[in-house]
Amino acid sequence: MHDLAGADPAVRFSPYCWRVRMALAHMGLDVETIPWRFTEKDAIAFSGQGLVPVLRDGDTVVHDSWAIAEYLDKTYPDRPALIEGEQGRALASLTRHYAQNVLATPMLKGVVGDLFKAIAPGDQPYFRESREKRLGMKLEQFQIAPEAAAAQLGVALSPVRALLKEQPFVNGRRPAFADYCLFGVFMWARGVSAVELIAAEDPVHAWRERMLDLFDGLARKSPRAVG
Amino acid sequence: MHDLAGADPAVRFSPYCWRVRMALAHMGLDVETIPWRFTEKDAIAFSGQGLVPVLRDGDTVVHDSWAIAEYLDKTYPDRPALIEGEQGRALASLTRHYAQNVLATPMLKGVVGDLFKAIAPGDQPYFRESREKRLGMKLEQFQIAPEAAAAQLGVALSPVRALLKEQPFVNGRRPAFADYCLFGVFMWARGVSAVELIAAEDPVHAWRERMLDLFDGLARKSPRAVG
Repeated sequence: MHDLAGADPAVRFSPYCWRVRMALAHMGLDVETIPWRFTEKDAIAFSGQGLVPVLRDGDTVVHDSWAIAEYLDKTYPDRPALIEGEQGRALASLTRHYAQNVLATPMLKGVVGDLFKAIAPGDQPYFRESREKRLGMKLEQFQIAPEAAAAQLGVALSPVRALLKEQPFVNGRRPAFADYCLFGVFMWARGVSAVELIAAEDPVHAWRERMLDLFDGLARKSPRAVG
Repeated sequence: MHDLAGADPAVRFSPYCWRVRMALAHMGLDVETIPWRFTEKDAIAFSGQGLVPVLRDGDTVVHDSWAIAEYLDKTYPDRPALIEGEQGRALASLTRHYAQNVLATPMLKGVVGDLFKAIAPGDQPYFRESREKRLGMKLEQFQIAPEAAAAQLGVALSPVRALLKEQPFVNGRRPAFADYCLFGVFMWARGVSAVELIAAEDPVHAWRERMLDLFDGLARKSPRAVG
């Protein structure tokens, strides 16, 4: 699997790649991750497009985290499912849209400076240009104080917080793909920044701790570009 | 079923009661609705609390829309299910929290003046006092221009809009309880106000039209306190 890496190749911070890392561990499937940078389009040209994650499984190449999850469920039906039933599919898809459309913005506002510093120097011009075009402003203008970002994120997390008061994981008693979609956004921030945007008493904080502990601490052990 | 009614007893505008009306129709169960006002606490004292919906099914009394949905699925297993599986339960619960925590606020900002006018005169002091306490301001201060409310609602709908580009209903190919939770918020506004907060080209608009058409136009035919 090609996995977005920072200036330190051990630092992996793509929310979409984290969805897949967790999904593979969920299924008990081993994976070799290949560090990849935003500008290394040639290295993944074999996938027919230019974004990670790209998963190669034997002779099969699949890109896009959602397509990979569907591929894994279909290809390994004897392993624990990531998405169950039509309502489960809707849960996972609603959660991924919520993560990327609603949560990513306040998260990025809090950590964009740290994120820029953690990116490989060769990727920085690409990152700045593409993100400033998307945001319509300079990265430095987009950044806000950690307290302000935490407050905005806290409001945005309201429906998930209410759900996590009822059950330990987004999916219910056990985590599955909806959890990994949500968790990816948190791993994006964690990989590059020491800024804490979630209050210790927030049920989302306890959920994140449970997620960090999964699969023998897979996510917790992942190197960070902080300090 | 006791169902919140306006000054005109035919006007029913509780988002929680609409969840149950749609759920009962989904199951093909007939219901007699009894108009109820906020201040008629005595009329539902038999349920042990003071809020609607309250459903009486034979000798069984159930209150709270979520508890009613679970009761119906358990009691009528041969009818079409409202919530399927653990991931489906999470979808429905996440959607209800999203509807009441995220969508209800911009919706109310757009229609609160109309809502207040549609409420039974005897309920108006109760409504004003309880809502102004909750909002921390006068109803008149909370109201914003329809265009501003539509813009805020449009942003809040982003994850649902993305989901509805993939499939016709929140639940997938067919509607179920998550759809009814979301739809309740729209019926709340529709019952009391002619203000249109959703653009005609928004996929959410087309979804709402499909919901209004369900069950032989049950929701579309419901009287409104408008014009």
